[in-house]
Order: sequence, then structure tokens, then C-alpha cells
Amino acid sequence: MGVVVPMEERRAPQASVRPLVELTAADMRRVNQLILSKTGSDVEMIPEVAKHLIDSGGKRLRPMLTLASAVMAGYSGDEHVTLAASVEFMHTATLLHDDVVDESDMRRGKQAARMVWGNQASVLVGDFLLGQAFRMMVDAGSMEALDVLSTASTVIAEGEVMQLSAAQSMETTEDDYMAVIRGKTAALFSAACEVGPILAQADKPTRDAFRYYGLNLGLAFQLVDDALDYGGSKAELGKNVGDDFHEGKITLPVLLAYRRGSEEERGFWRSAMEADASQNDAFDQAMHYLAAHDAISDTVARAQHYGERARDALAPQPESDVKQALLDVVDFCVARAS
Amino acid sequence: MGVVVPMEERRAPQASVRPLVELTAADMRRVNQLILSKTGSDVEMIPEVAKHLIDSGGKRLRPMLTLASAVMAGYSGDEHVTLAASVEFMHTATLLHDDVVDESDMRRGKQAARMVWGNQASVLVGDFLLGQAFRMMVDAGSMEALDVLSTASTVIAEGEVMQLSAAQSMETTEDDYMAVIRGKTAALFSAACEVGPILAQADKPTRDAFRYYGLNLGLAFQLVDDALDYGGSKAELGKNVGDDFHEGKITLPVLLAYRRGSEEERGFWRSAMEADASQNDAFDQAMHYLAAHDAISDTVARAQHYGERARDALAPQPESDVKQALLDVVDFCVARAS
Repeated sequence: MGVVVPMEERRAPQASVRPLVELTAADMRRVNQLILSKTGSDVEMIPEVAKHLIDSGGKRLRPMLTLASAVMAGYSGDEHVTLAASVEFMHTATLLHDDVVDESDMRRGKQAARMVWGNQASVLVGDFLLGQAFRMMVDAGSMEALDVLSTASTVIAEGEVMQLSAAQSMETTEDDYMAVIRGKTAALFSAACEVGPILAQADKPTRDAFRYYGLNLGLAFQLVDDALDYGGSKAELGKNVGDDFHEGKITLPVLLAYRRGSEEERGFWRSAMEADASQNDAFDQAMHYLAAHDAISDTVARAQHYGERARDALAPQPESDVKQALLDVVDFCVARAS
Repeated sequence: MGVVVPMEERRAPQASVRPLVELTAADMRRVNQLILSKTGSDVEMIPEVAKHLIDSGGKRLRPMLTLASAVMAGYSGDEHVTLAASVEFMHTATLLHDDVVDESDMRRGKQAARMVWGNQASVLVGDFLLGQAFRMMVDAGSMEALDVLSTASTVIAEGEVMQLSAAQSMETTEDDYMAVIRGKTAALFSAACEVGPILAQADKPTRDAFRYYGLNLGLAFQLVDDALDYGGSKAELGKNVGDDFHEGKITLPVLLAYRRGSEEERGFWRSAMEADASQNDAFDQAMHYLAAHDAISDTVARAQHYGERARDALAPQPESDVKQALLDVVDFCVARAS
């Protein structure tokens, strides 16, 4: 007699980034070497600042996506390593500039580079890394990949500028918010996934599959991040909880609570987010309103929606370990908050 | 009987940028149209900020150099227009980031963008323009041109970072200073001139001729700029005179006066440049020391040296109106200060 595995359990997602990490481990070693060598400069401050950020232990999800999508699309050369490093440099440059723009003190639990070396170094080392990213793209030799990544770099900047304007007002709509995160987060995820099949000279449906997988994964990822800033569905208090609130950064949980709230509640949100008066008791009040309107859990639900779209984008692709690993990443991203 | 023209007068340079302006006028109209169309974005703030800077009447010397060098090297296509716009975008992005790094209030006689829209917008719109520059390079379709321009973008950033460190200390050497201006100014001049012959698929000697013409012209240009900040050889007080001094920016005139000066004078320079005590009477004292050591006129002499090297770099190239115009630009740049 065999063991009866309930349908539900058999289909349960692994919700882990581990398979992707393992499948890309060998290539990621080469990516990390390349990253180290390309932060080199005779100008001492450049490797120092770059190393500070690169060593601070980001997940390196984006370059892993590039590697995996290239392999899955049938690429067998070496340039996916170059483009993966290039994608990580674009990401790192964005973080350096973001910290200046947001006036952040911390990044990944360490002092932000701008607090150690100043805003000036953060702007300029960001520019240096962006330049290196483009040089590596040139090394990789694919005009199409260059087109996709350079377009992403403008879309990222547009998203950030949009956020600057949107950040000021509670009248930001959900669609405005989605446009912002599409730019500032999803565009690079999308490009990171699309350049793999481009290297593999895959056909358009395959390119589109990876592009939309990346785009929707990026949207889900950012939505979950914004939900986690209020503790996620379970509203558990982890590290960084409340950061967005105290910085007056208007994200979807707040927008939902605002739009669903009473006139009095709207007044609360306006003074809490638009003014600079985010005390701790205001945060407790905010958490109360967020819960009353299911604003956090519905943000996670929105993330699940994009997670599903990411999964379905890859659905027509042939089954493989790599494909399964990419699907697991979706579940992992969404599961963080639920 | 003919008129006897003295040798000296016959060889006198035109010292004008006019021939270059006239020869590139038709193409520059297309460059300007392209620039306008590529600053477009649904995100309102982007065209606003970009327009502020682009309308503020820079000379657009760099894109003219790209157009002229392409034509002179025998190029007959359209992509020199694209690359010229790309070069101007790289330059504009650098200006936006520089103003943030230098904490400048003014740029070209107008309020700096960061004073109107904030540092944040200046960083991000700079990133957007840099991204657009790379997209245009991709449009132009030349991997070699992309390589040259993306390398320039890292060298520019390196030069600026070097300046950050050098700016602090009077122990900066002349060679340090030259390395800084090679990065922050000459690298883009050089790339702007080299991409022309690349488009024309010119041979290596021709590419090198234009590259070194641009590099040396850029060095001369920056040296003259730094001399003009103290009024040039005649020490005439024009606009912006004294800006570098009051900002404590250490340039060659100051370095020469410092190195040639007495121990007492060195003490003066250290307290004037390293501390923040640049009063008007200190400036008069500084001008006195600069004159006593020929520091300004010798800075101009250094510029003349690089101007000569720029001229000689082009010497083997066949004579033409465009070549003459490029030589006139050298004389124009150097003549501004003498």
C-alpha cells in the first residue's frame, strides 16, 4: 500500500530560494569574481565604497535570475556571467543613488555608504559602477541585451523621479504606485530575466515569457517588501518595521487604508504622512487602521496576483530543474509576507 | 607689387569657434531636435529639469566635435547625429551630478537645477539622461563607439572621485591635478572626437589622431578654465572670477603658487584653501601671490602646450575646411585666457 499524499500537499510550493542558489552556484562564483575585479580602480575610494555595499550581503537575486534564465533558454556560452555582473552593478549603483535621494542612514543593517564617505562619493561611485555595467554589456557583445538593459536604466530613473513627486501626496492612486514600483523595481528584474534568452537567441515567445516572469516577480517582490514594512499579513514586528511610515513614504498599505477610511482617518493619514510628525503612538494608530481595513493582507494578496502572473508567464516553457527553481523563487518572495 | 604679409600675421590663428559652428550648423539642428525629443518622459519633472539645463545655453562644443570628426573622417551616414546627442547627454548628466557633489548654487548664470528641484531630482534626472545616452548609443549601432563612450563614463566618474580626495589637500601634485582633469574633462572630449572616425570605419592612425586631438584639447580647455577663474593671464576681473578660490577648489594656479612660494605663503594657502575662511581680502592676497609667481600665466602656458599637442595630433590628416575649423577651436580655447 502506497502512502496517500493529499493533493494539496503535493502541490505545496517549496517557497525557497535554495534550489536557485544551488543551480547557479558555480556560475555565481564567476560572477562574484568578475564583480570584485570590476570594482578595481586606482582611485582608492572607489573599491572601498563599492566593497562596502557589495560585501554587505545582498541576496544577489537579480544576477541569479540572469544566469538561470540564460541556462533555461539553452545558452551555453560565457557571457551570461558578464551580464549577470552587469545587472548587479546596475542594482548597486541604484542603491547608492537611492540612499542619497532618500537621505537614508542605513542600508542592509550597515551604515549607508553616504554616512561613511558622504553623498558626493555615493553619487560618483554610483556613476562609476553604472559606467562599468555598460562596459561589461559591451564586453558581452549583444546589442539586443544592451538595448534592454539601457532602456531599463532609464525606466528605473523615471520610476524614482515619479516616486519623488508621488511621495508628497496622499492623493497618489494605486495605479500611480504601481507605475512607480514597475519602474524602480520591476524594470530591472524584467531586464535581468530577458537578457538570458536574448543571449540564447531564443524566439520572441520565449523572450516574452522571461520578460514578463521577471516583471511580475519584481512587482510581487516590491509589494511584499512594502507589506513587510508593516510586519506583513501577521503584522509581526521584525527589523525595519515602520521605516516607510516614519519616512513618510507612501506605499500601497497606506494608500489602501487611506482610500477605504473615513474622512477622519484620511485626516490622520494626511497629517501623519505629509507632515513630519510620525511619532510612535501615531504608528500604533496607523497599524490599527491598516488592520481594520485589511490593508496589509490585501497588499499581500496583490503580490500573490503578480506572483501567479509570473508563474503563468513561464508556464508554456518546458519543465526542468531550473524552471522549478524559478517558480520556487516566486513562492519564496510571496511567502515572506504571508 | 603684392602686399607683404608678415610671417607672424599670416600664421596668426583665427581663434574662433565660428567656422566649426557654421560647418556643423545643419547637423546641429538635427542634434538639437533629437535632444529635445529624448528628454521627453511622461514623468513631468524629467523634461522640466532637462530643459532647464539644456536651454541654459552651453556652447555644445562636444557634439560639434563629434559631428566634425565624423565628417572629416569621411562618414556619410546619420548616426553621427545620434552619437553627438548622446555625448551632450553624458555631459549634461555629469553637470547635474557635479552640482550636487559641489553643492553649487549656480550653473551658467542660472540657478543650478538642484536649487530649483532639489538634489534628489538632479541625481535621478542625471541617471535618466545617462540611460538615454546609452540607449542612443545602442541606436547608433556601433559596438566600438559604445565601448569608447562607456569607458569614458567610468573615467569621468573616476576623475571626479579623485577630485573629491584631492580637493582636500594642498599636497596635491601637478600630476594629481592633471589626472583629475584628464578624467573629469578630457575623457569626454576625447571620446566625442574618437567616435566620429569609428563610425567612418577609419584606420587606427586616424582614430588615434582624433582621440588625442580631443584629449589634449580637453586638457587645454580645463587648464584655461581654471586660469580664467583667476582672471586669466591679464588677471581681468570677469564673471565667476574667484569662484574656485572661495569654494576652496584646488586648481593648478594655486598649486603652482603654493609650490613656488615661501613657507609663510604656504601657510597662507593652507589656511585659505583648506579652512573655510576665504574672505575678499584673502582673495586679493591670493591674487598677489599668484601674480608674483606667474602662476596664472604659467597655467595658460601649460594650456598652450596641450593646445600644440592637439594641433599636432591632427597634423597628418589631409587639409580641409573641417580640419581648419578644428584647429581654430584649439586656438579659440587657449586665446580665451591669454
